[in-house]
Amino acid sequence: MKINILTLFPEMFDIFNHSIIGKAKDKGIVEISPINIRDFTLNKHKKVDDYPYGGGAGMVMTPQPLVDSIRHCKKENKGKVIFLGPRGKTFNQKMAMELAKEEELIFVCGHYEGIDERVYKYIDLEISLGDFILTGGEMAAIPVVDSILRLRNGVLGKEESYEDESFSEGLLEYPQYTRPEEFEGEKVPQVLLSGHHENIRKWRRAQSLILTKERRKDLYDKIILSKEDKKILEKYK
Amino acid sequence: MKINILTLFPEMFDIFNHSIIGKAKDKGIVEISPINIRDFTLNKHKKVDDYPYGGGAGMVMTPQPLVDSIRHCKKENKGKVIFLGPRGKTFNQKMAMELAKEEELIFVCGHYEGIDERVYKYIDLEISLGDFILTGGEMAAIPVVDSILRLRNGVLGKEESYEDESFSEGLLEYPQYTRPEEFEGEKVPQVLLSGHHENIRKWRRAQSLILTKERRKDLYDKIILSKEDKKILEKYK
Repeated sequence: MKINILTLFPEMFDIFNHSIIGKAKDKGIVEISPINIRDFTLNKHKKVDDYPYGGGAGMVMTPQPLVDSIRHCKKENKGKVIFLGPRGKTFNQKMAMELAKEEELIFVCGHYEGIDERVYKYIDLEISLGDFILTGGEMAAIPVVDSILRLRNGVLGKEESYEDESFSEGLLEYPQYTRPEEFEGEKVPQVLLSGHHENIRKWRRAQSLILTKERRKDLYDKIILSKEDKKILEKYK
Repeated sequence: MKINILTLFPEMFDIFNHSIIGKAKDKGIVEISPINIRDFTLNKHKKVDDYPYGGGAGMVMTPQPLVDSIRHCKKENKGKVIFLGPRGKTFNQKMAMELAKEEELIFVCGHYEGIDERVYKYIDLEISLGDFILTGGEMAAIPVVDSILRLRNGVLGKEESYEDESFSEGLLEYPQYTRPEEFEGEKVPQVLLSGHHENIRKWRRAQSLILTKERRKDLYDKIILSKEDKKILEKYK
């Protein structure tokens, strides 16, 4: 997968040189190229922002460097142009899965008070990370790109997995335990030590359902409980 | 504000050496200290993870290094211990504003398949970035910390502002325009060039309302429209 990121702070994306995505880059499975929007400005002082028409605090990113940098990327990258901004559709796992099917993507990160409205014509999709404000689109691009790339074949190693994870089935994940069997007086639930796979599966399913009900009633209300689910819940409630 | 971040990848937080948060660090307004959880493991091979009890793919972070690193931080940092994870309350601007009032915070980043359930006892608050999966808690800690710190006094410079921004009043922000007056055939709306402050204010309010209604019906439905709002909407619809 080939990802271009248009940004005023290309060095922020050094974050992807580490950990799981770093390894995937080294293996050549994913290619992430940050491109500096400032390199495209025709302003002689290399400016990329200016005062908003109509007044108000803050600076607005001018259209020319943004549009020219998008055009530059589109020569080599045929992917969707995605802008990270508060007006977009709120990002979720379904969107991550859809976007992970693409071979190429271009992300555009705004900064300051926002981008000139006329740039939106060149954007295919706007994504919002959530209902909060960030110092720049980079802070949203990072988790969004991470969440898409980890779904690509070969990115996750044996230490990680995308089986049974939260949201994949509309449920939160069940509690996990590892060694030691007893930690500061707290023991691992007996069922997990039993070696009885069927009981373990049922206990985990019950815990997922219970946790989702407690913490995320909105997700729980969308689940259609099977006959088995109801029986399990009765047992573990 | 003093922030400790417990992580297996401290170098990822170099991202905060740049841009707005970087400047705030340089000015001494905020202090961000990533601490390597691995430095606290008592395992002779420096391991911090192990297989999950009960089987299944992926590795789980063992309780000892996490709990000991939390205890270490709490000696100097009296702030809330915040874990970034999918079971948490979904992060939003209101939470950012609440947390920005604190003087100290400790963030804990999980990795791999999750953390041992027994660690939750040492966590004060769990925050979820949204309904999607990341390679690690670092990817969530970054936007959350960014969004909190930008609300601290003195962090935003004159290029940025937190007036009139999206979500601050439960509305999306109005469209912004900057120079040139005409860009590739597209002109700035006449009202913004008029110098008539009252008309500009009303136009912007109308655009905010219209955009929010179109893009975020969920937010729009929570707004109580004033008499003036209704009049403005009638005019600009």
